[in-house]
Amino acid sequence: MKLAFLNGQLIPESEATVSVLDRSFLYGDGLFETIRIHRGLPFCWKRHWDRLALGSRSVGIQIPRSEAALREIAQELIHRNGCDDGVLRLHLSRGVGRRGYSPAGAESPTLVMTTHPAPETDPTRPRRWRLVTSAWPLPAFSPLTPLKTANKLIAVMARAEAEAVGMDEALMLNPAGHVVEGTASNVFWIEGERLCTPPLTAGALAGITRGLVLELARELGVPVEEPQVEPGVLQRSEGLFMTLSSLGLVPVTELDLVSLPESPVMVRLHDAYQARLAAGE
Amino acid sequence: MKLAFLNGQLIPESEATVSVLDRSFLYGDGLFETIRIHRGLPFCWKRHWDRLALGSRSVGIQIPRSEAALREIAQELIHRNGCDDGVLRLHLSRGVGRRGYSPAGAESPTLVMTTHPAPETDPTRPRRWRLVTSAWPLPAFSPLTPLKTANKLIAVMARAEAEAVGMDEALMLNPAGHVVEGTASNVFWIEGERLCTPPLTAGALAGITRGLVLELARELGVPVEEPQVEPGVLQRSEGLFMTLSSLGLVPVTELDLVSLPESPVMVRLHDAYQARLAAGE
Repeated sequence: MKLAFLNGQLIPESEATVSVLDRSFLYGDGLFETIRIHRGLPFCWKRHWDRLALGSRSVGIQIPRSEAALREIAQELIHRNGCDDGVLRLHLSRGVGRRGYSPAGAESPTLVMTTHPAPETDPTRPRRWRLVTSAWPLPAFSPLTPLKTANKLIAVMARAEAEAVGMDEALMLNPAGHVVEGTASNVFWIEGERLCTPPLTAGALAGITRGLVLELARELGVPVEEPQVEPGVLQRSEGLFMTLSSLGLVPVTELDLVSLPESPVMVRLHDAYQARLAAGE
Repeated sequence: MKLAFLNGQLIPESEATVSVLDRSFLYGDGLFETIRIHRGLPFCWKRHWDRLALGSRSVGIQIPRSEAALREIAQELIHRNGCDDGVLRLHLSRGVGRRGYSPAGAESPTLVMTTHPAPETDPTRPRRWRLVTSAWPLPAFSPLTPLKTANKLIAVMARAEAEAVGMDEALMLNPAGHVVEGTASNVFWIEGERLCTPPLTAGALAGITRGLVLELARELGVPVEEPQVEPGVLQRSEGLFMTLSSLGLVPVTELDLVSLPESPVMVRLHDAYQARLAAGE
């Protein structure tokens, strides 16, 4: 029986429910983390915790457990669910309050953890994505932009649109028309052996794998740039890939029907990521 | 015992729960309506239904009931809860699907209705609001902007900020710095006997009371304009008021500590609104 953690208890996932007055249900008034589970361990746990803690301070929702306590519970949940490779999802909601947007009076946050199977993988056909540029604009930059909040309807719509035309992921632009990120991933491209990715100020989520890849690039001596560019620059690049916690680095073979080469720089970064994953942080 | 309607049944509100995997909880992947209840009837029901139906088509979440059936259930809920004056809240979520943003596979929407007391009113002190311009920018215009989606974290943050400085509501601007709306209300001002409100293309929600007030203005022969302006224009206006379904028209006495006069045009519109309310549509 699959379990979930809800407000202090491990219970059957099928019985893990929240009130219809919970503010994350009503307004998306919450934060979450999607954490890769590798060999039974939550990969980059501390980085995810740090982002959650930053978000918690920004939106004023207290995390009702310490990092150590939460990690212990996560570990038990992973173990009890027999989820050696997969995804741990952690969700923090402001909980139930008064009707209306004011958070006043909502003082019992809801904390949920669930485990999920790894995204399906076919070992005979390495995962490569085809991308389409989305017509859905990302929100303007705000203090919430770099955080992983539960306000994801634009991402849902853009993903649905990409899938409707047979693509794997959508490339999102900001109101200025600059490349920002995928719906559930950050974007990187190679230009003259340099690694490029949009700056957070373009409106990008501070992805955990994005941060890790930038760190690995520095370790490997790969120069890094954070330029604001239009999608055409990516189509003319020496290679394009996306990063997301559940999968790591995913090569992109096509953007808006234009084929893209595979860059050796990306292969090096991918190998470095795999080495980190094998080391368990 | 207070009841709620959840997926086909009237049940005790305290037992009305949704899965922690419900997409409105996870991503704000849902829509809602806040409907004034007056003398036991949902005011402007058909207008709210029409907006919900438009949203339903836009985001691709089916409403699992006909308008007539839903209205009948709403009426029964209002009656059983003895809620003669108050607020009916209707929430439509995409329901449970697979993990991730793709809506594929989420085919059982969650429909919830709850009733709530009217916002507190003190008859000896007519409700008047003090406003502060918010530093939180509204999202860039998208097909979602005019809809009442469950992505409301910016509104939550802006409202919290306004309350922290002792104000009643925040005035929200778009990335261009133009006035758009309140966090939970639309904004109107009077200039040379004309009624002004920001256009939907500025990023404003298509408020039901906003639409009704524009209609009443036309009936009264009050000229209407939809200009894009900065907050200073409102401070120099002949009167300022907000509209929201739960309260109708609310005069604003102060914007960013600048006092505002009361316009006779607003009083006429308010009387016309009250007459419509008394007529029950």
